[in-house]
Amino acid sequence: MKWVRFKYQNEVKYGLLHKEQIQIAVGSPFSSFTMSGLAIPVSKAKILVPCKPSKAVCVGLNYRDHAQEMNLVLPTEPLIFLKPPSAVIGPDDAIEYPALTQDLQYEAELAIVIGKQAKHVNAAQAKEYILGYTCANDVTARDLQKKDGQWIRGKSFDTFLPLGPCIETDIDPANTDITLMLNGEIKQKSNTCQLIFSVEKLIEHITAVMTLYPGDVILTGTPSGVGPMQKGDTVLVSLAGIGILSNHIV
Amino acid sequence: MKWVRFKYQNEVKYGLLHKEQIQIAVGSPFSSFTMSGLAIPVSKAKILVPCKPSKAVCVGLNYRDHAQEMNLVLPTEPLIFLKPPSAVIGPDDAIEYPALTQDLQYEAELAIVIGKQAKHVNAAQAKEYILGYTCANDVTARDLQKKDGQWIRGKSFDTFLPLGPCIETDIDPANTDITLMLNGEIKQKSNTCQLIFSVEKLIEHITAVMTLYPGDVILTGTPSGVGPMQKGDTVLVSLAGIGILSNHIV
Repeated sequence: MKWVRFKYQNEVKYGLLHKEQIQIAVGSPFSSFTMSGLAIPVSKAKILVPCKPSKAVCVGLNYRDHAQEMNLVLPTEPLIFLKPPSAVIGPDDAIEYPALTQDLQYEAELAIVIGKQAKHVNAAQAKEYILGYTCANDVTARDLQKKDGQWIRGKSFDTFLPLGPCIETDIDPANTDITLMLNGEIKQKSNTCQLIFSVEKLIEHITAVMTLYPGDVILTGTPSGVGPMQKGDTVLVSLAGIGILSNHIV
Repeated sequence: MKWVRFKYQNEVKYGLLHKEQIQIAVGSPFSSFTMSGLAIPVSKAKILVPCKPSKAVCVGLNYRDHAQEMNLVLPTEPLIFLKPPSAVIGPDDAIEYPALTQDLQYEAELAIVIGKQAKHVNAAQAKEYILGYTCANDVTARDLQKKDGQWIRGKSFDTFLPLGPCIETDIDPANTDITLMLNGEIKQKSNTCQLIFSVEKLIEHITAVMTLYPGDVILTGTPSGVGPMQKGDTVLVSLAGIGILSNHIV
């Protein structure tokens, strides 16, 4: 199933995407819902960011191919950081190129969307806490990330966390093609089979530290091929079975 | 004025603390409010965390005395990191000693409480965006902070961000005594005149990156004297004119 959050006739609702139609739900997949029985064409709706996370937990260096690209030894446990909720934007929203950076970069990522409150969850039970998956772009001011040593400033600007377009509940997160295209050219191309730490292992690691709430997201790391974006560029993160997250740089 | 958030007869409200009374407000200082004209004794209320931040932005190494203690050169600009909202607890709540650390430490800090939405704010205008100030403890698993290099895991455990007991609107943030007591013994003692970057400068620096929302907090850094806590300990952060934030370790 593909959950979408959308605006239609000035109301924000959840619905299920089925071909070119949205079947409208009453309520939300994060609490309770029923299906209204009503449907509208996708073309009549504005697709919004599919969830409003209270936090976004991100994982550094989690693709074998990216670790090799960076000449880094494989980590023995996940390295986590945070992006603030104020960085979240939705499909087709603009990524703002901050005046403070001269090196704005894309990072295509598979994002886990948490479906129910999770603390001290074992990997074996982790999937019960996942609503589904969406596309994410871990937009990064690479120069500030390197300058500060701590990664937070370089990754926390407003608009630095595009998410969407939908939450797909049924993909295999251990075997999903991930692609990033910049102005039509493929820049990143991998598969989540390259993940050093599986989505289940990430949930175990993170919930040993902090409670995750419905709508929170985990960004699972980026494959090789990260690089710069310029004003005017269009960047697409594509995950097979989920869809395409498109944003432009202003 | 001292804003408190409290529970009384199963309702959560804001009020103004005046001697041993809470004057009950209708609404909140973060949106709009009127005074109800009613008051209750403080002893009848449970004092809660004074705000529910969407994010907590923290500053590393911002006291001259702490930089000297660590033999570090003074930074030329603030170094920021984040703590997640899931870490927030209130006065008299328990700090949980995680099984994953063997070195749980306190860090007494002055916290700025944001009163209205702030982006690209100059230092000269910064005070207009501040509702007031509260006490914070930037609880840290020092061993994990050092092991990871990135500070987030070591600072993001549930219960690692005690805030309170009130939001004082009228102190001078450039001249406020700050003290930390562990089991009755003074461990940290300084004054915010030691801040390398003023509260105004911090707001300028942070809002150049991200939008701050009403109720968001900025932790302004900790003075010299950081050290370990053990299960059973009681830790007090005291800021002159604000009050005492007390928590115990379990």
